[in-house]
Parts: sequence; C-alpha cells; structure tokens
Amino acid sequence: MENVKDSDQAEQRSEFALIARLTGGLESRPDVTLGVGDDAAALDLYADRVHQSGAAPVALPDSPGSAAKADTQRPLLLATCDAQVAGRHFLLDVSTPEEIGHKALAVNLSDIAAMGGEPLWALVSLFIPPSFDIALLDGVYAGMRALARQAGVAIVGGNVSSTSGPFALDITLLGRVARDRMITRAGGRPGDALLLVGEVGAGIAGLLALGTPDVKPLVPLDAETLAAVRRAMVAPTPHLAEGRALAASGLVTAGLDVSDGLAADLGHLCDRSGVGAVIEAAALPIASAARRVANAYGRDPLDFALYGGDDYGLLCSVRPNGVQQAVELVRQLGTPAHIIGKLIERPASERTETASTLRLEQPDGALVPLAARGWDHLRNGK
Amino acid sequence: MENVKDSDQAEQRSEFALIARLTGGLESRPDVTLGVGDDAAALDLYADRVHQSGAAPVALPDSPGSAAKADTQRPLLLATCDAQVAGRHFLLDVSTPEEIGHKALAVNLSDIAAMGGEPLWALVSLFIPPSFDIALLDGVYAGMRALARQAGVAIVGGNVSSTSGPFALDITLLGRVARDRMITRAGGRPGDALLLVGEVGAGIAGLLALGTPDVKPLVPLDAETLAAVRRAMVAPTPHLAEGRALAASGLVTAGLDVSDGLAADLGHLCDRSGVGAVIEAAALPIASAARRVANAYGRDPLDFALYGGDDYGLLCSVRPNGVQQAVELVRQLGTPAHIIGKLIERPASERTETASTLRLEQPDGALVPLAARGWDHLRNGK
Repeated sequence: MENVKDSDQAEQRSEFALIARLTGGLESRPDVTLGVGDDAAALDLYADRVHQSGAAPVALPDSPGSAAKADTQRPLLLATCDAQVAGRHFLLDVSTPEEIGHKALAVNLSDIAAMGGEPLWALVSLFIPPSFDIALLDGVYAGMRALARQAGVAIVGGNVSSTSGPFALDITLLGRVARDRMITRAGGRPGDALLLVGEVGAGIAGLLALGTPDVKPLVPLDAETLAAVRRAMVAPTPHLAEGRALAASGLVTAGLDVSDGLAADLGHLCDRSGVGAVIEAAALPIASAARRVANAYGRDPLDFALYGGDDYGLLCSVRPNGVQQAVELVRQLGTPAHIIGKLIERPASERTETASTLRLEQPDGALVPLAARGWDHLRNGK
Repeated sequence: MENVKDSDQAEQRSEFALIARLTGGLESRPDVTLGVGDDAAALDLYADRVHQSGAAPVALPDSPGSAAKADTQRPLLLATCDAQVAGRHFLLDVSTPEEIGHKALAVNLSDIAAMGGEPLWALVSLFIPPSFDIALLDGVYAGMRALARQAGVAIVGGNVSSTSGPFALDITLLGRVARDRMITRAGGRPGDALLLVGEVGAGIAGLLALGTPDVKPLVPLDAETLAAVRRAMVAPTPHLAEGRALAASGLVTAGLDVSDGLAADLGHLCDRSGVGAVIEAAALPIASAARRVANAYGRDPLDFALYGGDDYGLLCSVRPNGVQQAVELVRQLGTPAHIIGKLIERPASERTETASTLRLEQPDGALVPLAARGWDHLRNGK
C-alpha cells in the first residue's frame, strides 16, 4: 500500500498526501476495522450496517446477535494492493519474467505477513504495451504461480488492459487474520524492544550494482556478491511464517514490513503508535553482500541499511519481557532476528534536533537525530 | 474483470486466453466458490483449508462444525477488479476528472450488481505520469467518492505509482452476497426469458460522436442528443438496486453485466450455462439518442445495440413463470426493463450457420446467426 521506494522524492512525499486526499473525511464504519494507513485494510464481512443510500443491505441469515462474540471470534478480511511498473519497480533487462511475477506477488504477501495474516486470494491486473512480447507473460505467470502455490494463495481474478505506457502489474491480495491476533502499526509502547526479522541493505545494493550501469564501482565485485544482492532486489522473500508465528505469540505490540526503508518505516510505526525510537547502529543486521557493494562504491553501508528500502523484512515492537522468546521463535524458522533498538516516549517537541522522534545511537555512543525518510531523499541530496 | 470493450481485437481475443493462462490448472479449493470467469470471484472467508505449504492456517475460533450450516448461511465475499487507462477507457479531453473517477468505480460496481451483491470496500491504485496535473486528482477523487457514498462503499486502501505511461486507475471492489441468492453466468436453462435491465447503444454512440473527431456525422447532432450519449459514455450508472432486487426475488437463473457488448456478453452467459439463445431485433431497447447518432453517421443502430458495449445494463435469464414479475420489479425502481429474447437448447454442432449458439430474429421473422463478438471486430471489418 505504501510502496514508493524507487520513485522520486516528490512522489514519496505525496503518496500519503494523495491517499489521504482520496480517503479523508470518510465516516467511520463498523465494517472497516482498519482503513488506509496500515500495511493492509482489515474488514469485517459480517458487520451489520445500514446503507448510505438507504437501500437494504444483503440479508445475512446468521448475522450474529451477540456483539461480544462478534468482536472476538470473527476473523477479519485483510486487503492490500501494490503495483509494479517496468522501469520503476523492476527492470526488464535485469529481472527474469519469473522474477517479475514473483516480486509482484511477494511485495503484497509481505504486507499480509506484517499483519500476522494468512494470505488467501489474489486478483492480478495487467497493463500490456503493444510492443510487449506476450510470450514473456508465461514466465511472469510461472513465477507468480510458483510463489502463490508456496504461500497457499489462489489467483481468483484479473484484468488485462492494453496501455501505451510500460508493462505493469497491479495485484490486490486478500487474506484473513484472527481479530485478537492482528498486528498493526499502532500499539507500540515506550520500553518495547525493536525486533527486525531478516536483514537490510541488500535491496538497494542490488539496484546500485545491477540497475545503474552508468555508476561504476571503485573495485570490481565478485559473482557471489552480485548474485546475493541481485536476488534480494529481484526476488524478495516475504516472511509469512514469521509474521504469523509472532502474531500468534502475543509478544508483538506493533509491526510493519520494511519496504520504504528502515528509517521511513520506523517513522510510520512511531507515528501510528505515538512514540519515539532509538536505533543502535552497531546492532543493525546489514547483509554482508550489501556491505561489500557499499564498500565497492565508496558508500556507507549504514545508509543502505537505514534508507535503502525494498528489503521486505519485518519490523516489530516487542513487549520487554518477551524479547528473547520472540527472537528465538523467528530464528527457529531459520530466519535472522535481531534487536536493533527500542521505543521511547515521544518527545514533546520535535523542533530541536535532540528532541527528534527517531534517534540513532552511533557506535561511539553518541545519539543523533534520524530522519524518517527513504532512499530517494538521500539520492537527491547527493 | 472482462473490461476490454474499447481495446483492439487482438486484445479482446486474448484477454480470456491470458487470464486462463494465468489461472489455468489451479486446484479447486473449498474457499473459492467461484474463481475466474464470472463478473466477480466469490470467496468463503470462513472455509477450513489446509495450506499448500503445510503451514498452519490462521486459527478460527468459530470455524463452523456443520458443513450444512456453512453452505447455506455464510455470506460470500465478492471480489472484482477493472482498470481504466487514459486514451483507451476514457479520454482526458472528453471526460471531466469527476467523470473519470465516477466511471472507474462504476464499471466495478456494475460487476457486483450483476452478481446481486452489496458493494462494500474499494482499493484504488493510481498510475500517475510526471506530466499529470495533480490538481486534477481532486476532481477524480470527488467523482469517485460521490459515487462511493451513494453506493455505500468505503475506500479502504490504495497505491500510488509513478509511470512513464498514461494516467490510469485500477480499482478492486469487494462486496458480499448471500450464498443462496448469488447470480452467476451459469444456471440459465432453455426456455428462460432474456431480461435486459437498462438500454443499449448509447455508450458506443458517445464514443463515435465525441471520441472520434476525425469521423464527421452526415448531419449535425443536436445538443440534447450529444449530452445524452456523452453521459452514457463518460458516467454510466451501475444497476445495484436492480441487481439486488432480482437476486432477492429468486426469479433469475443467470446474469451478467453488459460491458463488452450485448452479443459478446450473451455469448459468455450461454457458454457458462451451456445453452443457446435467440434475440429479437425488434425487442431491443436501443437508446433513442443512440438511434439518432447512428442515423447521423449512416450506421445501423442495431450494430450499436448488439456490439457496442460500455452500456452497463444487466442481462439476465428469468424463469418462464416469473417474467412479468421480474420486469415489474425493475420498472418499479424507475429503470427500463425489456424481454429481448430467450434461451434455447445449445445446438449440437456449431459448424453450420443455422446451428449457431446465438441467433438474431430479424423484424421479418428470419433467424440469422449472431456472432458473440464486441465492437472492435466490427470496426476492424469496415
């Protein structure tokens, strides 16, 4: 829903504003548990509601009489959509067709994972330019379907439009979650630990190493490093089992997926939870291949980790007494899990640097303000 | 889901093939009541299912023990998606921004209407070119939100992507329907009457009169005619109340919305129901403004009616003993309703013209084969 990592700064600034304009001022409804502003919307298919138009709603024979039962026992529908446009979200000369299909679904699966949900159904909308080789679609489909099968997702609908623009895929993914186990961006509290599932930095490293041929490394990169960052960039792995295990554990107070960049996404979590945060630079699990790429290009690996985006790890706040249990739970699934900082009280004023909502603890112990921004700001600043 | 009316013939031929390639060979699942191939997918949020991956599904505390109860009493989730691309599905110099937003939602509402469902939630994915005036979006939003409010729809999510291509909107619309009242394309039987809700011909008349400035009419058109066909083209009205009333009546055996063109859509209904059909040319409710446009351009109004598309009426098959009741039910809502033909046994062989699945009864009583095709075939043939 907030997949703006490789677009320009103006767009990144404006996506939230645009969606807010689209949805602002809408009345709250009993069937919309969670609307715009989280990784997915959470919806109640069984809610009683009266139509705005006065028309009678569909009769629901088993519409529950007990509101208490309704609140705790009905699973919620999760819904999210994310589009991938050639030349912006993937590069036709870097990704294979299979990888394009995989990633288009993976970024949506990551949103459902972040809510602790079970993905169920996908609708796939394709935009096909006249010049596009239709045979490539078989590869796109194969990649999408392989991941769908793995994740238990059925492709139940779709649309095909021709376009004079670039090839694009827009996927809407639907799933479900137990109401009392859903992870949202709100709910984080001062003192909670920040748990990162997966590593960071490799997505943007892949883009730099493979997607910007005009920018050359200072030293050549070995094939293994290139393969590792390429894989992270073109075929990210959604952390579905990890998200569901964390949700079921009841240890997590808030969470989201790291798609815009660690600092930007932490900013979203803090805004929704009404807290601040401190990240320890030395604790960040920067992918080793990303470090090598950063070094080869004379860049700071920490910038990749904080602002890179496109990594699709999960960032969660965890109750202080459940930290070790949460870490082990993820590691038992074979996935890296690290405590990278903690939530703190939100500063009363953010006008001064020392009162910044997000702070970075540098290796020497100094605390510096951390901007809740993604990669493009950095690029624009160079 | 099958919104291909103003694209070229190759695309029209291929949309079904493309979606079939995307979804073909997938296993049937208890949670997918109706997959690709109808106006919307019908999904069961409560179905028990085992994950392909072996991972445990989300725990559902009230997962029903009685399959019988489950089958009859749970409402189904409806899901459909339809995209609108500038220059193909709307013209930026013909439609106002409000009308663009209205139509993008209307074509999806029409799919839910055709299933007899109640629309609930929309996810809106925008593709915005750098040159696009962001201020126009306020108008697009206003048009979309006005119709959403009227239809009882909450906009619960979205996505904004920049694109080097044309402005486009992709909307996924979710709704619900009582399981035992859902209207699908299957279920029509020989002897059923064909009921058309709304009129036909005005959508394509609007495109000809306003969207093809290089094609001039033989005689000038009056402002009232132009306004009528323009309105049909840029701001169609979805027949939600009519669809729901027909579904609740239990009189309808099959149905779908007329988006590709009457002949093409009737072909879809017949294919899914395993029947043939006869349409009476003289019974077709061709919009009077569409007749005037056809005459002004030296075209046959019947071609507009049969092949035009973009009209968003509902086409239903009705039990023989419920015909008058169904017609009155729609007319009581202030909407035109006409019996335009009937379903017949599907011919054993379609090799000869007289055995065609679809036939047209001409005013002189002669029966001629009717091709299940949309407008573009006609245009290409000229």
